[in-house]
Amino acid sequence: MAVVFPRFLNSPLPSSFSPPSPRPQIFASSSPMDVTPRKYTDFPFVSAPHRNLMVDLVSTMENRLHSQLKPCVVPSDVQYYYTPNRDSHGSLYIRSGHTSSQVDFVLGSWIHCKLPTGGALNISSLSAYLNASTDAPNFLIELIQNSPTSLVFLLDLPPRKDLVLHPEYLQTFYENTRLESLRQTLEKLPEVQPYYSSALYIRCLTSPTSIMIRINTEGGGAGRMEEIIKDHVDPVAKEVLGIWLEQCACGHRTVDEEGKAYLERRDGLIKNKTIEIDIGSSFPRLFGPDIAGRVLEVIREVYNG
Amino acid sequence: MAVVFPRFLNSPLPSSFSPPSPRPQIFASSSPMDVTPRKYTDFPFVSAPHRNLMVDLVSTMENRLHSQLKPCVVPSDVQYYYTPNRDSHGSLYIRSGHTSSQVDFVLGSWIHCKLPTGGALNISSLSAYLNASTDAPNFLIELIQNSPTSLVFLLDLPPRKDLVLHPEYLQTFYENTRLESLRQTLEKLPEVQPYYSSALYIRCLTSPTSIMIRINTEGGGAGRMEEIIKDHVDPVAKEVLGIWLEQCACGHRTVDEEGKAYLERRDGLIKNKTIEIDIGSSFPRLFGPDIAGRVLEVIREVYNG
Repeated sequence: MAVVFPRFLNSPLPSSFSPPSPRPQIFASSSPMDVTPRKYTDFPFVSAPHRNLMVDLVSTMENRLHSQLKPCVVPSDVQYYYTPNRDSHGSLYIRSGHTSSQVDFVLGSWIHCKLPTGGALNISSLSAYLNASTDAPNFLIELIQNSPTSLVFLLDLPPRKDLVLHPEYLQTFYENTRLESLRQTLEKLPEVQPYYSSALYIRCLTSPTSIMIRINTEGGGAGRMEEIIKDHVDPVAKEVLGIWLEQCACGHRTVDEEGKAYLERRDGLIKNKTIEIDIGSSFPRLFGPDIAGRVLEVIREVYNG
Repeated sequence: MAVVFPRFLNSPLPSSFSPPSPRPQIFASSSPMDVTPRKYTDFPFVSAPHRNLMVDLVSTMENRLHSQLKPCVVPSDVQYYYTPNRDSHGSLYIRSGHTSSQVDFVLGSWIHCKLPTGGALNISSLSAYLNASTDAPNFLIELIQNSPTSLVFLLDLPPRKDLVLHPEYLQTFYENTRLESLRQTLEKLPEVQPYYSSALYIRCLTSPTSIMIRINTEGGGAGRMEEIIKDHVDPVAKEVLGIWLEQCACGHRTVDEEGKAYLERRDGLIKNKTIEIDIGSSFPRLFGPDIAGRVLEVIREVYNG
């Protein structure tokens, strides 16, 4: 699914908001101008419960998959990048799986952009893609915050087969797990509304138990948002990651040659469409064509790997 | 999709509610006991805006598809059926398409059941299935009302292909039409909440622009519900039917032999799963095993036809 996710927001930025012209430069984190080098696991600029959740998820995933993952070899100017005026910062983290692993790669990203309104847009995401040796679902989490009282939260195990044609797959991964009951837990909160991606293709990628919600705490303020993240979003996200690690990443599935070819075709199409939707959208607008191009080249490489 | 739809409701009936025992009999509409023979297009027991909408939809569909449809040959004791104590009534209407038509069949159903709470459950539905000479989407509308101030409304053109693998199909029928904007029209009403079918398989059958909502007008009463049906539900439903008639039922699509085989397999699986979900659920509970069995036999026949 999406990597850099502003597309999920319905017009997060006024059209007058554009990166500094004419051509923003990329500063490596070793640049003398860079006094605050950042890495993916820093999750700066966000509240403590938001940061703690993401740090815990990354560390749980790394600990469980440890020996299956290669080190992160993303170039330093893509591991951390920012526009010259420092209004927009981002970080990318990728660890590919070893040949013997079912994990294709794990990909994390955060973005922080000052908004012309005075606020900021913060997007934290972590996704994990499996390879064609298994047909088990992938993992995706994203927190998109454009004010302290507004959060779009996406959490899903996106299926890798047409669930209409494969009811036994639906049963194994969705009906026989706690995913639906976890979805309902969040749905019940009065601050929660459903969230619809403006891209219909992105909607098609989700499972029937996907959590795609907008949380609005304007009445209760930023404190209530932090409380919701800590008490509700955090435990649900950790339980969903646990289900994915046990039953998907580390479970065993038999896939024949025909099934492998199908998965490779479907996974490949999803990755290409996802990048196309993102590239055509707001990422170049947030970081300018040079930085966007450089980051997307790295993503394309691991996607087509 | 579903034919008799109580399954869409999360426990519409208390478990103590069951049809009169020991074995309810079927009374043909010609029975001397039957002083109120009913037909599908009567839509009795519901408000005028609800009835007008359904009557208009059936008549629009019949007028547009006129020469393509065979007459309804459903046996009279299935065209209209009820339990001996007359607490539960139902009607079924089916018109198959001629061999030269792209329409497989049109199926309508209404159900009225007194609830032990004193209220009543009313379900009106109309669906249309295309055959494998085209891969265009089907049509489905359902209104499920278990009180004058509460309505579950489902309206969709369920896709007949995996949209993830066929983005051009998504574009033709969903991105290039007004379906998403029609969905948003209803979503904006303050009385509207999203509706999730308790059956995950049913959720998988819907398109990304499907309307699956619960309308609650407890504050505004039954009058406000009638107003919403007349001013919002009615025009949206008619526009969606118009899109389906022009672009799906009467549009031209090229399907090769492999495509036909795929559609037959997928359509068949959906019909079988849908009946299975309904049979295992509340239909026999509402009408008893005899009536439910007789009605479902007719449906199975046309589904497998």
